[in-house]
Parts: sequence; structure tokens; C-alpha cells
Amino acid sequence: MQVTLYFFGKQNEIEPRELELIRRIGFRCPISLIALPQAGLKDSIQNKKKEADSFFKKIQDSDFLIAFDEAGTEYDSLQFADSIQKSIETHRHISFVIGGAYGLDTTILDRAQKKLRFGRMVWTRKLFRLMALEQLYRSFEINTGTAFHKD
Amino acid sequence: MQVTLYFFGKQNEIEPRELELIRRIGFRCPISLIALPQAGLKDSIQNKKKEADSFFKKIQDSDFLIAFDEAGTEYDSLQFADSIQKSIETHRHISFVIGGAYGLDTTILDRAQKKLRFGRMVWTRKLFRLMALEQLYRSFEINTGTAFHKD
Repeated sequence: MQVTLYFFGKQNEIEPRELELIRRIGFRCPISLIALPQAGLKDSIQNKKKEADSFFKKIQDSDFLIAFDEAGTEYDSLQFADSIQKSIETHRHISFVIGGAYGLDTTILDRAQKKLRFGRMVWTRKLFRLMALEQLYRSFEINTGTAFHKD
Repeated sequence: MQVTLYFFGKQNEIEPRELELIRRIGFRCPISLIALPQAGLKDSIQNKKKEADSFFKKIQDSDFLIAFDEAGTEYDSLQFADSIQKSIETHRHISFVIGGAYGLDTTILDRAQKKLRFGRMVWTRKLFRLMALEQLYRSFEINTGTAFHKD
């Protein structure tokens, strides 16, 4: 099994706190955090389309894709962990994608087997990445049965 | 007007990213991030009670208190901003409090005029503090009418 988290931005904007979570998740499951180029176009539709193009060059047809989207389903941490567990049992590779400045193109949302959100608030993409990594870490700790998660 | 965010932990665990948000919020409203001692007791009830004691020594009767609690109301960012605006118009001082290892004592929850949560997930207290600061920053930008928040 293998998890990849894609985001639109630069590899060098990944912070020490994120690297630490990646290191810890790595004890449970190989994980990569992959930067895809931001399109930087003013037109939101064109921007999302261009970003989707670079995304589809990376992802495999067999990947189980989970897209973070403000209209997505909202799980609690235990449901999220359970969902990760089930995805891992049926797919060798799980990919997550966090939208760019204008969100995700419909082609990505249509391709995703799951669309999730963390609550109703709007977050900066940078903080959202950290939140996603923390929930992933929490999921693996829940599924491994360690004391990290206290419900 | 003045905003204070209380948490149970150490003042020196506040990270550069949080200090940067405090600096930016400070252009709109004076804000303090105040560490209260963690009780460190094994018994969760006693722990919460002891933490509540140090909290009540700090807070003023006239403060408008917003407690972060997993059973709290969930706003979107615009509703949160609107709620901050209304609280500021009626109270000189707004205090927020983030629970310790076992959450908040009922005496704090009863004292709070508002109980809020950010979604259904469980977050580490450290990340939650950053999330709260980012939403506070976003609120002030929304209420000032800057381009930071794109809905």
C-alpha cells in the first residue's frame, strides 16, 4: 500500500511540521507529498483545467482517489480512519488531492471515488495540507490501535 | 476592543506561524495568546476542574466568552466573522478558550456565551490553536472587506 497527497504549490513550501508528520505516518504506510504546478491563470475555469491536466499526468487509473472539496462528505476521525482502512484493503494506492487557488476542476471531482471536507470553514491551502496530514496520521494510529487518539 | 485566546500549555510552545497570525490580526484588533498551566492530573474530572480554576482567575465577568467544544455549533467562515463582529459591538473584550487534554470543565462551558467547533474531526490542541488563529484572522479580513477571503 502507498498513499500520495497531491497539492498545487511548491515542494519547498512544505514545512518541518509536515515533514515530521510524513515521517511518523511512514512507520505505518509509505507516503509522498507531491507538489503540482499552480496554473497561476486569472480565469478560474482555465486555471482549474490546466491544474487538472498536470494532475492527470501523475495519477494512475488504478488509484483510489479522495478529493478534498467544500461540498464533500464530512466524517469524524473514526469514520475517516475506517474509510482509509477499507480503501487500503481494496486498492494498492490511495491518492488525495487538495484544490488550488480556485478549487478542483470538475474532471477531478468526477474521477474521485470520494469527496471529503473538514467542516464548513474555509482554510488556506497551506493550513489545510497540515490538517490533512494530521488526520491521516491520526487515522493510521487509530487503525493500529495506539493511544494517540482519545475519543 | 480586545481579543484573548486562552489555551492550556506553555507560552514557549507558540510557533512562528502563530506569532505571524497574531501580528497580522493585531492590525485589526489587539490580540493576546495566553498559556494557562496544564493540570497534568490522571483523573479527567479533577484535571478539568483544576484547569478551570486557573482559567477563572484570569477571565473578567464582563468578558464575552467563546469556548471551543466538540459539541459546539458549527459556523462557516462568514458566519464566524459575523458572530465576531456582533460580539465586538456589544463587548469590549472577547475571550476564546481551547480545552486541555480532557476538554473543558462544565463550569467553563456553562459560563461561555457561545460554544463553537470546527467540524467533526478531533484535532491536536496545538494544531487547533493554529486553526483558531487562522479563522480569527480570516474573520477580521472578512469584516474589514479585504481580498484575503474568497468564498
